[in-house]
Amino acid sequence: MPGSIRLFVEFELAEGGVVSLAEPQAHYLVNVMRRGPGDEVRLFNGRDGEWQARISVARRKNVELILEQQTRPQNVEPDFHLCFALLKRARTDLVVEKASELGVSVIQPVITTRTQADHVNLARLRAIAIEAAEQCERLMVPQILMPVSLAELLAHWPAERRLMLADERRNAPVAAPPAGGLLIGPEGGFTDQELDLARLHPFVTACSLGARILRAETAAIAGLALLLASAPS
Amino acid sequence: MPGSIRLFVEFELAEGGVVSLAEPQAHYLVNVMRRGPGDEVRLFNGRDGEWQARISVARRKNVELILEQQTRPQNVEPDFHLCFALLKRARTDLVVEKASELGVSVIQPVITTRTQADHVNLARLRAIAIEAAEQCERLMVPQILMPVSLAELLAHWPAERRLMLADERRNAPVAAPPAGGLLIGPEGGFTDQELDLARLHPFVTACSLGARILRAETAAIAGLALLLASAPS
Repeated sequence: MPGSIRLFVEFELAEGGVVSLAEPQAHYLVNVMRRGPGDEVRLFNGRDGEWQARISVARRKNVELILEQQTRPQNVEPDFHLCFALLKRARTDLVVEKASELGVSVIQPVITTRTQADHVNLARLRAIAIEAAEQCERLMVPQILMPVSLAELLAHWPAERRLMLADERRNAPVAAPPAGGLLIGPEGGFTDQELDLARLHPFVTACSLGARILRAETAAIAGLALLLASAPS
Repeated sequence: MPGSIRLFVEFELAEGGVVSLAEPQAHYLVNVMRRGPGDEVRLFNGRDGEWQARISVARRKNVELILEQQTRPQNVEPDFHLCFALLKRARTDLVVEKASELGVSVIQPVITTRTQADHVNLARLRAIAIEAAEQCERLMVPQILMPVSLAELLAHWPAERRLMLADERRNAPVAAPPAGGLLIGPEGGFTDQELDLARLHPFVTACSLGARILRAETAAIAGLALLLASAPS
């Protein structure tokens, strides 16, 4: 049923179950999308696959739906982490939206020496990730983590997980799978000390994203395309 | 001199030459960036490489610069065309900006059956492309063409130039070089008739951009990353 409304919910989804939506989802369904009793909606929660549900009660602040049947089983998505030096708001929003579409499982903002931003509104970013997952037929919403320093990120990164570090200054090979994560620096790049620190860790592999100099948010999107295009859905 | 100001100009650039900038570039240099006599600026025009220039006169509406030396020779950039079904304004802007960063030479908006937009402000899009080229160390600015219908595009496309058509509905191989162009459909995709028409042309190769369903602007950016990352600068 492509084209029908798809919503992410926190509830369990199982046959015959009833789901009750409050605002803002009720408002969206009833007032924005003009849906009413009898109309179909698809629901997913990241665990129970995708379900077809039918609206039984449609009020402005409360919509009830009856779960009819599973339309897709839950899949196992690639476990891929995007780590990026935090950007200003509009560009952070863009990175979160596009990373969610491209299929990352975890989004980790990082604070580096040259990072210009330090504030992150997790609720806002999560809403962006949910909307992207709803629109792009994903069955999971990426997890968005609180910012950490580059040193913390590297200290806690699992040794068996390859972290591709985008480094436009050296002649590294173009990013290619397999990798479990991508690390994108700030505008102006990592400092030499940061690059030296990263390279001390055997799980870090420097890579190029092509011959061009890219803005940070473009580097994140391009790198994810290179690393995730051949991943299963 | 990364970090210094880089401007695209239409003038010829040669040693000892003098370049005179009017608004809005004069305003940008003097009022926004607070540059004055003696300060250095880098200039490029898409033909004569990149030049270091020094400001000799700095007025609000007129800045004069003396060309000192060529800092980079003109390169030959990949000849790659992005053809995309025209999107609404903000998303068209994003596609033009990111395509310019990623190195396309020609940007061709296309009108398809399901295209929702039909208006394009070429001057605005060209300004976006110029700014992206200035910021991303490119020596050329992509050419932006007037929209054409899909049928016109296909009828005039050079037979020897491979056109990768992003088609999320079939099991096509993931987009990979070599290709001379990428064709991205509208939200909702090409119609079956359009896909049939495209496939009549031997230069068209269907490709996938990965297992995910991507918004149109994300598909354009991801496809360019896949096709251009290994291209020379």
